[in-house]
Amino acid sequence: MRDNRISEAVISRLPKYYRYLSELEAKGTQRVSSSKMSADMGLNASQIRRDLNCFGGFGQQGYGYQVNNLKNEIKKILGIGKKYTAVVVGAGNIGQALYKYTNFAEEGYNLAAIFDADQSVVDKEIDGITVRPIEELADFVINNEVNLGVITAPKRHAQRIADELVLLGVKGIWNFAPVDVVARKGVCVENVHLSDSLFVLSYRMRTNGED
Amino acid sequence: MRDNRISEAVISRLPKYYRYLSELEAKGTQRVSSSKMSADMGLNASQIRRDLNCFGGFGQQGYGYQVNNLKNEIKKILGIGKKYTAVVVGAGNIGQALYKYTNFAEEGYNLAAIFDADQSVVDKEIDGITVRPIEELADFVINNEVNLGVITAPKRHAQRIADELVLLGVKGIWNFAPVDVVARKGVCVENVHLSDSLFVLSYRMRTNGED
Repeated sequence: MRDNRISEAVISRLPKYYRYLSELEAKGTQRVSSSKMSADMGLNASQIRRDLNCFGGFGQQGYGYQVNNLKNEIKKILGIGKKYTAVVVGAGNIGQALYKYTNFAEEGYNLAAIFDADQSVVDKEIDGITVRPIEELADFVINNEVNLGVITAPKRHAQRIADELVLLGVKGIWNFAPVDVVARKGVCVENVHLSDSLFVLSYRMRTNGED
Repeated sequence: MRDNRISEAVISRLPKYYRYLSELEAKGTQRVSSSKMSADMGLNASQIRRDLNCFGGFGQQGYGYQVNNLKNEIKKILGIGKKYTAVVVGAGNIGQALYKYTNFAEEGYNLAAIFDADQSVVDKEIDGITVRPIEELADFVINNEVNLGVITAPKRHAQRIADELVLLGVKGIWNFAPVDVVARKGVCVENVHLSDSLFVLSYRMRTNGED
């Protein structure tokens, strides 16, 4: 497929395009130029054109891009809208926040259950849903064809949980524990480090005004 | 300053280098080659050398980089270790999670207080600390020389909170509301979209095995 050749840098910008175009669509905007996108998104217009060309999003001179078509194309490339059934492992604050966040379900990511090993939070209700004991994880993953695991457990448990999820057959791991987890070939991992954006912010604060 | 010319792509990788080198340092490793970094971090070795060259991190042929020196150089560039005093606005799950997370304090980011407008959570204790009423935000920011605002409030309030924080004199905004907030020139903003990494993960899951 053509999009196997999309570079990591372009891939990392696709969600931003997707969000931007979804907002335009919601406002009823039918077309947009790369220069308008550039002004709104803070990206270079020629970079936007190059990025969108990568997967066949060709704008027309003097007309621009069709918002709806381009959004749907990016959505398809990102694999949004396919059926994802996920479990959240770790019912601390981050786990609860993700589990309660309804926007993921709207995009097709069904966070179906949340688990914890701590007996004091198990059977605790979160918005009417109960935190399940970790002992039920395996059965749940198998019975519900779970293909995505979200790790929101403490650092020291993260790799063990990832290993278990992989054994149970998930195809993707979205990890929020502050340590990179690894998985065997064939299972995709995104390690999220919230502090990274804080460090980038402090870089900008430090260099601000020096230009 | 030389580092004003560091590209956005390099800046976005610096936190990853910083985390990696901090881990090596904690293990007592004194030097590391770009090829070892490449294998561990999943980045191209020549890209690593180019990145590190950008800010004067020159490795020696056959010796590699001094872990401690390189880590400290990146730390300085990122502005980590300078004094940041922050307020968290919004005491929902994400706000509480960030506020309770002690690693930020270890790096010099003092999340000094958490605020909410909802009377039902105000005066609620979180790990022994009380959620303050939003009415006290202005006084707190001014009296404590707060320079960083963390927004973890609902989408519809995010821009108004950002505007207030800017008026009160903060120099940086770390926004977790699912909408991009903007600030006048001179104030830096990092808009964090947790769903972006989920979309990238689903892209990888979709294309996995097609290479």
